[in-house]
Amino acid sequence: MPGDSIGKMFKVSVWGESHGSSIGAVVEGCPPGIELDLNRIQEELNRRKPGRNKFVSARNEKDRFEILSGLFNGRTTGTPISVIIKNEGFEKENYEELGRIFRPGHADYTYHAKYGIRDYYGGGRSSARMTAPVVVAGAIAGQVLSGELGIEIQAYVKKIGNIRSNISSSEVEKADLYRSPVNFPDMDREKEILALLGKLEEEGNSVGGIVECVIKNVPAGFGEPLFDKLDADLAKAMVGLNAVKGFEIGNGFECAELTGKENNDGFSVSNGKVVTKTNNSGGVLGGISNGMPIVFRVAFKAAPSIAQKQNTIDIDGKKIEIEIKGNHDICVAIRAVPVVEALSAIIVCDHYLRCRGQCGVK
Amino acid sequence: MPGDSIGKMFKVSVWGESHGSSIGAVVEGCPPGIELDLNRIQEELNRRKPGRNKFVSARNEKDRFEILSGLFNGRTTGTPISVIIKNEGFEKENYEELGRIFRPGHADYTYHAKYGIRDYYGGGRSSARMTAPVVVAGAIAGQVLSGELGIEIQAYVKKIGNIRSNISSSEVEKADLYRSPVNFPDMDREKEILALLGKLEEEGNSVGGIVECVIKNVPAGFGEPLFDKLDADLAKAMVGLNAVKGFEIGNGFECAELTGKENNDGFSVSNGKVVTKTNNSGGVLGGISNGMPIVFRVAFKAAPSIAQKQNTIDIDGKKIEIEIKGNHDICVAIRAVPVVEALSAIIVCDHYLRCRGQCGVK
Amino acid sequence: MPGDSIGKMFKVSVWGESHGSSIGAVVEGCPPGIELDLNRIQEELNRRKPGRNKFVSARNEKDRFEILSGLFNGRTTGTPISVIIKNEGFEKENYEELGRIFRPGHADYTYHAKYGIRDYYGGGRSSARMTAPVVVAGAIAGQVLSGELGIEIQAYVKKIGNIRSNISSSEVEKADLYRSPVNFPDMDREKEILALLGKLEEEGNSVGGIVECVIKNVPAGFGEPLFDKLDADLAKAMVGLNAVKGFEIGNGFECAELTGKENNDGFSVSNGKVVTKTNNSGGVLGGISNGMPIVFRVAFKAAPSIAQKQNTIDIDGKKIEIEIKGNHDICVAIRAVPVVEALSAIIVCDHYLRCRGQCGVK
Amino acid sequence: MPGDSIGKMFKVSVWGESHGSSIGAVVEGCPPGIELDLNRIQEELNRRKPGRNKFVSARNEKDRFEILSGLFNGRTTGTPISVIIKNEGFEKENYEELGRIFRPGHADYTYHAKYGIRDYYGGGRSSARMTAPVVVAGAIAGQVLSGELGIEIQAYVKKIGNIRSNISSSEVEKADLYRSPVNFPDMDREKEILALLGKLEEEGNSVGGIVECVIKNVPAGFGEPLFDKLDADLAKAMVGLNAVKGFEIGNGFECAELTGKENNDGFSVSNGKVVTKTNNSGGVLGGISNGMPIVFRVAFKAAPSIAQKQNTIDIDGKKIEIEIKGNHDICVAIRAVPVVEALSAIIVCDHYLRCRGQCGVK
Repeated sequence: MPGDSIGKMFKVSVWGESHGSSIGAVVEGCPPGIELDLNRIQEELNRRKPGRNKFVSARNEKDRFEILSGLFNGRTTGTPISVIIKNEGFEKENYEELGRIFRPGHADYTYHAKYGIRDYYGGGRSSARMTAPVVVAGAIAGQVLSGELGIEIQAYVKKIGNIRSNISSSEVEKADLYRSPVNFPDMDREKEILALLGKLEEEGNSVGGIVECVIKNVPAGFGEPLFDKLDADLAKAMVGLNAVKGFEIGNGFECAELTGKENNDGFSVSNGKVVTKTNNSGGVLGGISNGMPIVFRVAFKAAPSIAQKQNTIDIDGKKIEIEIKGNHDICVAIRAVPVVEALSAIIVCDHYLRCRGQCGVK
Repeated sequence: MPGDSIGKMFKVSVWGESHGSSIGAVVEGCPPGIELDLNRIQEELNRRKPGRNKFVSARNEKDRFEILSGLFNGRTTGTPISVIIKNEGFEKENYEELGRIFRPGHADYTYHAKYGIRDYYGGGRSSARMTAPVVVAGAIAGQVLSGELGIEIQAYVKKIGNIRSNISSSEVEKADLYRSPVNFPDMDREKEILALLGKLEEEGNSVGGIVECVIKNVPAGFGEPLFDKLDADLAKAMVGLNAVKGFEIGNGFECAELTGKENNDGFSVSNGKVVTKTNNSGGVLGGISNGMPIVFRVAFKAAPSIAQKQNTIDIDGKKIEIEIKGNHDICVAIRAVPVVEALSAIIVCDHYLRCRGQCGVK
Repeated sequence: MPGDSIGKMFKVSVWGESHGSSIGAVVEGCPPGIELDLNRIQEELNRRKPGRNKFVSARNEKDRFEILSGLFNGRTTGTPISVIIKNEGFEKENYEELGRIFRPGHADYTYHAKYGIRDYYGGGRSSARMTAPVVVAGAIAGQVLSGELGIEIQAYVKKIGNIRSNISSSEVEKADLYRSPVNFPDMDREKEILALLGKLEEEGNSVGGIVECVIKNVPAGFGEPLFDKLDADLAKAMVGLNAVKGFEIGNGFECAELTGKENNDGFSVSNGKVVTKTNNSGGVLGGISNGMPIVFRVAFKAAPSIAQKQNTIDIDGKKIEIEIKGNHDICVAIRAVPVVEALSAIIVCDHYLRCRGQCGVK
Repeated sequence: MPGDSIGKMFKVSVWGESHGSSIGAVVEGCPPGIELDLNRIQEELNRRKPGRNKFVSARNEKDRFEILSGLFNGRTTGTPISVIIKNEGFEKENYEELGRIFRPGHADYTYHAKYGIRDYYGGGRSSARMTAPVVVAGAIAGQVLSGELGIEIQAYVKKIGNIRSNISSSEVEKADLYRSPVNFPDMDREKEILALLGKLEEEGNSVGGIVECVIKNVPAGFGEPLFDKLDADLAKAMVGLNAVKGFEIGNGFECAELTGKENNDGFSVSNGKVVTKTNNSGGVLGGISNGMPIVFRVAFKAAPSIAQKQNTIDIDGKKIEIEIKGNHDICVAIRAVPVVEALSAIIVCDHYLRCRGQCGVK
């Protein structure tokens, strides 16, 4: 049973492979009558693009999206929005030798085990290139959310290696982020990050990182108990993202060390709105949004493609030694920032439409 | 759009409220012809039951399940298995005063915001009591998996407060776990746990914890890219569980600090089977099982029901002070262990059936 | 992949077998805050009950439903409504001899081929008894629709054998229907029906029939192109009903003989509402309701259980001769009338909730 | 909630509008490793094309499809197959005047009521042009079915106006069909059809028709009770097709006039296979295939676009008189033949994959 779609009411189905002629998405369920700002969508896509600085993959992707359906005179019609992006800026020759090899940390072996056949150019279907149409779909969702509900979504790098930002989620400034080549809000520690990335690049190595995301102005009431909770759907979307190994919301894994007395967020009323004094829960209680900012973090492993020698096996089980050439990301968390935002927008928009007309939401 | 079901091929729909006459589940998609061991299912249910020791809720639940359909002469027929469990051992009077109150850390407020009406006895729909039918459904899934594929699932408490087990996931012994009143595998540190729980009980407080789960003998090939990955579905199931705030697989959040060189699991062949020397990925690559043990951890917050005084508001926004009486869990992670196993079984069984006849799986 | 559910937003999952201890349904997605009239639901269930007259199965079913969840102080809470009905009034002994036999026209052989095992008492899972919980679920949907939108659903027998009602769909009176023992609106021809049924009963034979259904006051806009059209969903629900072999909407199969000039329904405006002068389309255009009455017909084959001798085979392929004893319906279309209404209510309610907040529907 | 997809295991999502730059489909769940014959797919698409004779729409569609993903070295990879077809051969000017008009029998009004906005060129989303990608997807499904199970699907025109083919479903010859410009198997009566169509063309009128479809070699066991029965899914697919007003399987509406004795298909064994002597059931019992040919019929209304004057209203409710110019089909049933086959292939393939590994199907 295929797993190529995310969302039920706002549904995004992604097709394509890294080195096919093009990749794309079909976006279903977008409300009709919305005037889409295509330039803003392209800006989001540009943020994901490789080649923005020397520490992310230098593949020369132009990444211009095109919308083939679902728009009429600039407005959505409620019918599927077909998004297409041409694949450009690569040479297939770089990869052919890898066709018989199971690269450590990649999905080569598991795709082989599952399907018996795979498009091995550039990782084929398992490539992070698949996130480009996700960003377009997420940008559409984001415009639905910001226009109708004033919802804002902001992600950024929280940590790379052991260098952690000291800026709290409520203090992050969008301006700083757009300035930072590594989507890192702590200007004091940015140079440490840059130094680390420079060193790893020289060594032909890579490193992991953590992305934090804040979603503001979600009304109380989004999320479906028992099994389609808002935080559960965010968790699924994030853990499904390439290279992700962990998800936590609110204080996350730290909550294991706290007592109930310490951890409970007491309710009060402020400006006629129910609020909590602390936000350890990260904006979700019982799987339903409580109106406070939704704050979560996502852990990315180091990109498995490194220039250093590694031991592995080929398709026949024979031991081999490989060096993975080409321009690869040193820290995938950096380019993942707009993707985390896009997936968040898709999930929240999906839950918005699930609630519409049903929980105080118009 | 309702969210009461988990799984697509092996699908479990849960109905009921904490203090209704009964709760239950409808299990769809169970393969026909399987002879179910009902005693083993009851044993799993008993492990979840409150009252097993003095640190978990003393509500006197008998928790005897009954199967109303889908079995014929002791064998599954491929049609829905309806599971029912009577609700017993509580008095509604304990809770009535809470009807107008938004308890901190609970879902009272969010259900109110979403639905405008809620069954407030014992938490109603948001109660962890809903996990009882999940355990029955998971035990059925577990028998499908163990019988047809030899898959074994084992969860246990990894950490409570700041007391962490030093037993690695490959060394945990089932015997120790069944002996431990707190599902904790590290016999040396168990007394520290018991002392901590005793102290918290006296104080009328609670504490968080981490549960680890190991799934062995999953063949390579389970999981559906891009958006229904095996690890993503596990994440959704776990984060959807009551009180959970985090999920990580393999080395999880630690991966953020590692380089690619350190983190990559090199492939080799052992006894004709593809294996990895390390298992930092936790048995999943690109969202698809690679044949290595699947290892993940789940973070539970402290139970929000504590006997100490807390400030909060009522349904009209008026400030109030509450003490939550009754017998409550001091650490919900303990009783969550069989539920984590049950949800794991449901997810893996679902992916097994999604693969059946399609990826080397008979 | 299981097929036990109907509806996506208003979702009904049915479990059980004809001669198990009980049967039931889980109704998900019912809007919260609705005060259900349980007596009216029971009345609907009574209409489906066997034994109302001598021409329908005399099985003595009490058919009292019970609601186990999802109601709080008489109102829906938005959580699953679990419906249970005890199975009573039969003796298993009547059926045991049929366990090895493939009865003509029944699903014995196909269940055997599909599952390898089946509950053969009274047809087990394939029995029309499964429609009892559908009637309860449909009655709940009907109350949602009548209360919020004033939608009315009325089905009746249009034809039995070659005796056809001459009352047009706009002239059918509810009072006549409640009076008629065979749910037949044409009082002039009712005696012909009764004579036919009496003759068939003597002969140990049965006969087919056609049920017509009218749904009034559906707003324009219900239905989802391309593949979840309102008429397509009605067709699926109806053809999925036991013994059904055909579905047509509006003028149905007659449209094949008409020209476009004859068949097109011209638009006009009446009392500020868009209407059509004729209603050949049966209230649906392009799969979306147009505000006119929805009118469709469903063809039922004769009940395959007849007392006359029939040749067939047993499970080993050996030729045998059988006579099916017991009290069986002479014309299943009669008792199907409330089931057709119930399924209609479920489908329309599902589409209502899919539209809510999205197409001029509050 | 969007309705743009058909199938669950073999899933086809269709995007586009009649006069957009292109239309397409994403086909998910196609088993990996299948070598697709692209020429045969193009042949199927050509059969649907307008302009094959003077009685179907003369729009000059080239209808060359392209596959953008999911194929590797000519074989399917198990990942989504993205199909795209350019829209060509029309001039937008023809239609602009219709932008404010609700054409009788078309979906103009209902789309307007539902979405508030619509792409009105050539019917936009509601155009039968949407069936072109369906034919491609169905041809892929057909290759899966014919290659792995030897399943054959054949549709043809059974009736136009009151001219009915006298060739029984078991006697239809593929060769005759490919020869007939109107997909009509009864060579004796073909000239009557041609005369009728010629006359209607002169008059600027159109006419309805009935398509019959036969599916051979479906193993016993396909179909999911209670609500995803094989015949129910076929009914939904067919009634969802443009201009369809009825569906019947086996003897269909005729069954209403037959007794059980007359209608029951007795089982016997032939060449070691369970068969029935008659096939009144049309190959499906209890919603599950019984191994006999599946035979069903679909009723199409006359194309609503006619050159004669019609009275209707515009978007403001004002009465107007229109004549619909352009080249339109005189009988849409003719061109629908390959679409009925394609939808049949999609539904049967979906049920094949739902059964795979589960009901005697490898």
